[in-house]
Amino acid sequence: MTTYFEDIREGDVFRGDEVIVDKAEMLADARRNDPQPFHVDEELAKHFPYGGLTASAGYTVTLWYRSCRPIIAPFVFLGGFDWHIKMPNPVRAGDRLRLEIEIRRKRPSNKQSDRGYITTSQRFLNQDGKPVFVCEVVWIIATRDSSLAQLVEKLTVRATASEELPESP
Amino acid sequence: MTTYFEDIREGDVFRGDEVIVDKAEMLADARRNDPQPFHVDEELAKHFPYGGLTASAGYTVTLWYRSCRPIIAPFVFLGGFDWHIKMPNPVRAGDRLRLEIEIRRKRPSNKQSDRGYITTSQRFLNQDGKPVFVCEVVWIIATRDSSLAQLVEKLTVRATASEELPESP
Repeated sequence: MTTYFEDIREGDVFRGDEVIVDKAEMLADARRNDPQPFHVDEELAKHFPYGGLTASAGYTVTLWYRSCRPIIAPFVFLGGFDWHIKMPNPVRAGDRLRLEIEIRRKRPSNKQSDRGYITTSQRFLNQDGKPVFVCEVVWIIATRDSSLAQLVEKLTVRATASEELPESP
Repeated sequence: MTTYFEDIREGDVFRGDEVIVDKAEMLADARRNDPQPFHVDEELAKHFPYGGLTASAGYTVTLWYRSCRPIIAPFVFLGGFDWHIKMPNPVRAGDRLRLEIEIRRKRPSNKQSDRGYITTSQRFLNQDGKPVFVCEVVWIIATRDSSLAQLVEKLTVRATASEELPESP
């Protein structure tokens, strides 16, 4: 089922998948991309402001995308604008995170009838309901007018087929 | 060699590692975390605004961290504040990206003598000098007064040792 710009209402709230912070994946990411002591060394991390091992913000971004998958899947998504991100609480191994998105505002494009803009307020919450990542971003979503509509039907067929072959591009 | 807050000057420019956008890694990331058609399907991507396969912004964040490693390594880094991010150009497989950071402003903490704040202007540039990712972020950096100074000496020893065992935590 495709969701078009016309189907979205201001005030709509969407919830993403629960994603669990896997310690091995979290450490592997930090060792490769962000080897700060408080991301890679349990003992040294105790001396840093958060008092223990935390996830790299880069890895948190990866998990944010992962949680968002079921939210964004029904849209024909064309892109996003600037991100304004805050990270008010640390992410730790074993945390269970889930994205919550509220649609704050929608407006059609003045120039292109095939798309509209939705302002999303995004909160990535941990198991205690505390936000670990808060983001405002405008998404560009296709309208029913979009020439991508037909393509989307093809996509739906492909997506179904690819579930049987998850590793194929 | 540790770089403390006192050693940083406004106007300093730092350059990160060149990182190459590996197509297999880019696709694996997108399939797991951000399976938009224009990130995972070369043929369908042609119909979307960028006219071809592009990296997920989440993967670009991963590469941003990877390129930053040698810039941040000499600091005793305590954390960062809000991110304001723009992505003015797409990232494609085979691109060669390098982070450039300019120190715009520095100010000591009023409350804690062990740290100071530096406002960084960060541009992640591709092989044509075009920015794919632009970010303003304030970093918290330890001063010479910091009780983490001694710890850092231990860290340096550990870091040297860990080069021989890159996979160990």
